[in-house]
Amino acid sequence: MPEKIIAVFGAGNVSEGDWEWQTAFSIGRELAARGMIVLTGGLGGVMTAASKGAKEAGGTTVAILPGTRKTSPANSFVDIAIYTGMGEARNAVNVKSCDAAIAIGGEYGTLSEIGLALKGNCPIILMNSWSLLSPGKKMQDWQVAEDPIAAVDMAIAAAG
Amino acid sequence: MPEKIIAVFGAGNVSEGDWEWQTAFSIGRELAARGMIVLTGGLGGVMTAASKGAKEAGGTTVAILPGTRKTSPANSFVDIAIYTGMGEARNAVNVKSCDAAIAIGGEYGTLSEIGLALKGNCPIILMNSWSLLSPGKKMQDWQVAEDPIAAVDMAIAAAG
Amino acid sequence: MPEKIIAVFGAGNVSEGDWEWQTAFSIGRELAARGMIVLTGGLGGVMTAASKGAKEAGGTTVAILPGTRKTSPANSFVDIAIYTGMGEARNAVNVKSCDAAIAIGGEYGTLSEIGLALKGNCPIILMNSWSLLSPGKKMQDWQVAEDPIAAVDMAIAAAG
Amino acid sequence: MPEKIIAVFGAGNVSEGDWEWQTAFSIGRELAARGMIVLTGGLGGVMTAASKGAKEAGGTTVAILPGTRKTSPANSFVDIAIYTGMGEARNAVNVKSCDAAIAIGGEYGTLSEIGLALKGNCPIILMNSWSLLSPGKKMQDWQVAEDPIAAVDMAIAAAG
Repeated sequence: MPEKIIAVFGAGNVSEGDWEWQTAFSIGRELAARGMIVLTGGLGGVMTAASKGAKEAGGTTVAILPGTRKTSPANSFVDIAIYTGMGEARNAVNVKSCDAAIAIGGEYGTLSEIGLALKGNCPIILMNSWSLLSPGKKMQDWQVAEDPIAAVDMAIAAAG
Repeated sequence: MPEKIIAVFGAGNVSEGDWEWQTAFSIGRELAARGMIVLTGGLGGVMTAASKGAKEAGGTTVAILPGTRKTSPANSFVDIAIYTGMGEARNAVNVKSCDAAIAIGGEYGTLSEIGLALKGNCPIILMNSWSLLSPGKKMQDWQVAEDPIAAVDMAIAAAG
Repeated sequence: MPEKIIAVFGAGNVSEGDWEWQTAFSIGRELAARGMIVLTGGLGGVMTAASKGAKEAGGTTVAILPGTRKTSPANSFVDIAIYTGMGEARNAVNVKSCDAAIAIGGEYGTLSEIGLALKGNCPIILMNSWSLLSPGKKMQDWQVAEDPIAAVDMAIAAAG
Repeated sequence: MPEKIIAVFGAGNVSEGDWEWQTAFSIGRELAARGMIVLTGGLGGVMTAASKGAKEAGGTTVAILPGTRKTSPANSFVDIAIYTGMGEARNAVNVKSCDAAIAIGGEYGTLSEIGLALKGNCPIILMNSWSLLSPGKKMQDWQVAEDPIAAVDMAIAAAG
């Protein structure tokens, strides 16, 4: 039986001193402690932090990478690396493969993942991420979490 | 020599009485009148309106479709239909293939296209679309247009 | 109404003196002379030759490229360049977007396109290409052409 | 550290009495017994048999699926299901994500996977699969195995 997968999205260019890193690490660790598989884009920053946190809790980590193992190898905390060679189009694969997703902070790649998640009916939890206001219509199918534990609670509840 | 391509993004479920339809039609016609190829997702609503406008001005229309010609055929104003069979991942192809893009209104698919355009350095013009506010950082690499002609002016200028 | 599109597949590393080049050029020219849009992978060798032939006959050329306009720009005989950034996965898009395909010669990329065409029910004509023998079963849903004109005849007939 | 992944390719429409099924089951079990992760397309026939064999030996199974969890759910022997929604384009992802691949029997989907593996320098072992003869050139970068154990030996050796 396929296991539950929660995706963690966020910038690749943050480092260990940044709040995004610490948040992603905590989220990854907590998700794994509760038996979830942690899915990321497999590169640096938030992706490394979430995977490292999950491994510290003895979890399993999966990554869906934009390049190939030669052009953009997975970080060393990834157990199962899927190389798409598809660039940013892989973001659409991420949101189809998880049961819920948590987006940390806000750069453009994360924005595209939020949009694809919403379009694809993948439950998405935002943590200090983009403020989004649609014109005229009331479109607001996301949740906002204030801290890592709340984000994990919401994601696991949404994953059903 | 490849010709200049401007993409028009927007919801598939609007109809002829809606402002999005009229706006997309005007933008498509104006783009074609100025020698641009008009690229859309090839389905209904904004995609049909922009393509119809472009054909009225004697232009060429291209579409990058999510499905196959059996599951989701292009609307009848599309000259060249590219069937990806890739679902929403085709949004990443759209932004790589155009010289600039105009997003009309705001649903979730459009949000993902805005995010992918920004991530991929494709100049993007918003018309009555999502209001986006990034947390902490100043990320605002888009333009906002008030009417169809202004949107076309900005897109052609950005396309270089 | 979408126009008829015939794809031409073949190696990117052949040059003007090679038979593949001359064959692709003749096929591209003949397809365009008969009103077909010529679709290729947009790079060198057979892809350039077929596009150049089509332009000589006043036709329209489309390309579906594996990279981006920065990493792998289309050759100068391509009118409409679709950049997928998806690498070889774009071969699956090629076969979904054409009404029939002609494969010239036989390298590994061409083999994958033949396989994808057969899998996707895209009629495919082979010209001095791979000999294929399936184990046990009789799977032979391709045609073999002896010269460029015969290949074009078969492709247009198959395109319906 | 990413673990070693071996892909098993083959038809989805064979059933338990067929030689392909028995072969795939034996190969999956042997790969898992030797510590390899088994990657398939996640659907029926050879894909189910290889995954079932791997689970019997206590291994881990990954699948890269053509559709979504709604349109084409993974078989029940898959641990980690990646849903691409990309149709046959996912075959290109399969060959980029494995360290070596084994193709069993020969239908058109398998032919496309063989072509993509050869194009992408993924070592490939054929078992009672397509006979391939390239025109003029000597292109033969595959191995042929006579039985499941030999196929596994070759794949693990090629995976390095």
